[in-house]
Amino acid sequence: MKFDLVNTDAKGRARAGIIHTDHGPIETPVFMPVGTAGSVKAVHQRELLDDIKARIILGNTYHLYLRPGMDLLEKAGGLHKFNGWPKPILTDSGGYQVYSLSANRKIKEEGVTFKSHIDGSTHVFTPESVMDLQRSIGADFMMAFDECTPYPCEYDYAKKSLDITHRWLKRCITRFRETEGKYGYEQVLLPIVQGSVYGDLRKQSAAFCAEQGMFANAIGGLSVGEPHELLYEMTGVVCEILPKEKPRYLMGVGTPENILECIDLGVDMFDCVMHTRNARNGMLFTSEGIINIRNEKWKEDLSPVDAALGGYVSTAYSKAYLRHLVISKEILGAQIATIHNLTFYLWLVNTAREKILDGSFSTWKKEMTEKVTRRL
Amino acid sequence: MKFDLVNTDAKGRARAGIIHTDHGPIETPVFMPVGTAGSVKAVHQRELLDDIKARIILGNTYHLYLRPGMDLLEKAGGLHKFNGWPKPILTDSGGYQVYSLSANRKIKEEGVTFKSHIDGSTHVFTPESVMDLQRSIGADFMMAFDECTPYPCEYDYAKKSLDITHRWLKRCITRFRETEGKYGYEQVLLPIVQGSVYGDLRKQSAAFCAEQGMFANAIGGLSVGEPHELLYEMTGVVCEILPKEKPRYLMGVGTPENILECIDLGVDMFDCVMHTRNARNGMLFTSEGIINIRNEKWKEDLSPVDAALGGYVSTAYSKAYLRHLVISKEILGAQIATIHNLTFYLWLVNTAREKILDGSFSTWKKEMTEKVTRRL
Repeated sequence: MKFDLVNTDAKGRARAGIIHTDHGPIETPVFMPVGTAGSVKAVHQRELLDDIKARIILGNTYHLYLRPGMDLLEKAGGLHKFNGWPKPILTDSGGYQVYSLSANRKIKEEGVTFKSHIDGSTHVFTPESVMDLQRSIGADFMMAFDECTPYPCEYDYAKKSLDITHRWLKRCITRFRETEGKYGYEQVLLPIVQGSVYGDLRKQSAAFCAEQGMFANAIGGLSVGEPHELLYEMTGVVCEILPKEKPRYLMGVGTPENILECIDLGVDMFDCVMHTRNARNGMLFTSEGIINIRNEKWKEDLSPVDAALGGYVSTAYSKAYLRHLVISKEILGAQIATIHNLTFYLWLVNTAREKILDGSFSTWKKEMTEKVTRRL
Repeated sequence: MKFDLVNTDAKGRARAGIIHTDHGPIETPVFMPVGTAGSVKAVHQRELLDDIKARIILGNTYHLYLRPGMDLLEKAGGLHKFNGWPKPILTDSGGYQVYSLSANRKIKEEGVTFKSHIDGSTHVFTPESVMDLQRSIGADFMMAFDECTPYPCEYDYAKKSLDITHRWLKRCITRFRETEGKYGYEQVLLPIVQGSVYGDLRKQSAAFCAEQGMFANAIGGLSVGEPHELLYEMTGVVCEILPKEKPRYLMGVGTPENILECIDLGVDMFDCVMHTRNARNGMLFTSEGIINIRNEKWKEDLSPVDAALGGYVSTAYSKAYLRHLVISKEILGAQIATIHNLTFYLWLVNTAREKILDGSFSTWKKEMTEKVTRRL
């Protein structure tokens, strides 16, 4: 795998690059739709390719481990073969879900014991087992096993948690180096910078992760409820330290505004489920602002959802029709809204990339931030 | 509108034809996917066109009347424009839903008073109002307002109900003739033969409907719980009487076996929601038999759902992946299963048509009935 940094914005730290993988190139900055259990909810794989123009999707190790399980994924030849997605895949380490979804979790030095949210059965994740799981899934990008601290979080807890995250990172790297990909293509492992909202911990963690010399680095533990100012401050602090020549992935972020801001701070990769979850309830992001399609205001609006995006669902269906579907709880409403929001997110990062390349990112970002934050 | 009867099977009464409409030709026999509230559940309009190869879809007057309402449909220029479906549409009269979904319904000579299943509000449908509604929806094929009798049904009730259905039919025809299409294309009205499972009532009703000289005729009140033998017997009795040179539509039927049998009795048009409803629970019809995809048996089956059909979803996804999605309650599971089952139904009627044209329908029907009724 190889990262080419193509251009850096003259006025800020925004970057345009290309990650070359065995499943094809990924132009950055990039947004990665989340396919939790091997499916981006309500979206066909060909729609991800042809309409949304996704370049990489995520899978969740916790979900895939519980269902369909590693035996079947290995038998299929990995997740790409199982779900028919031909481009790169990134998997998280399962840590975040263990903390947020499962019951009775116990964090010890060895790893985490937890109960499945599906059937209550008991399981253990360790840094080593999580590496093995991601080898079996066959993710192009594997994530280190960490503890994602909540917000707010006491300094002492954040520091103690960071220490264990760092010790786990070393164990992840050891296991990663001892093992090989199972399906003939290259996998890389990303360390995750933690440290809650404490600048000194973030700096320490960024330096520690950078030292490991892995292919790319991630920033975790943000967008968990903290004010946007802290999200930007911590991201800025960390991006200053993480090596420029390596991709940077900001986990679980965020709104269109967050993404524009963090691209400007030097982030290359993003993922978020908020806009697909909200889509199913009728909240749409468009190039002109935010729409709650359930509002009476759109009842008779026969114009396309967002003609500027040019994609099938954003132009083939009217706002009035989509509103009717969402209010009538028709599945097609969730489908259209999800594809639309994902198309918008990819359009946003693609346009950001163009603007970084032609040197107009700062001006465009200012205009676009005003648009994407207003409620129509 | 014009119906060309292209060929009739030498050994039975199966027919191949073409209905020419202002929204394009409909080759028969045909299966019509049901788009209750203006959307075939879990299916994009382009998937209906490109994958399922649907030639006509249904809408439900009752649902469309309650939501989105006639004002909006008229403003949009009819249902075709509202939902973006360019081919023909058939709407039912709303009668069936009034009896099955709404509360406190009261049937009088004038019409039916009922309460909405959505908000409990009170409404009235009359033969005249239902004609006006279908003019506003802009269905190519409009259905007469009738009473669909349940099964079982006493003879006296069936007879009394049939009389009112016939009086309503006359009123429908009068209103239909007094009014015009609102969007510049031709609409036709279909009488509906009722009479429960009583041969003499069915004969009387078929003769009465035939006498009206409308473009096509429908058979209602079947597939409501009666044994298959009675469904076939009544359909046979009615098809003997309905004019050969006009299309015949058997409402709400049925399983693949039912459809093959009733094609053989001379039916041209079918609709049914059973297989799309069942699809969402994992029951699949394939060219080799019936599959319950939730069964452990399919857990590691990495073969396509039904390669013989050749469509995207039936070949791009494996049984094991679809099973995983259905069990994990992923929306994509409902999407794949629905498209698959509809693709199968269209494949079934298309193949039947080919066999009628090449004179091998009877032999093929026998083989195919064995296949489609077995559980894999």
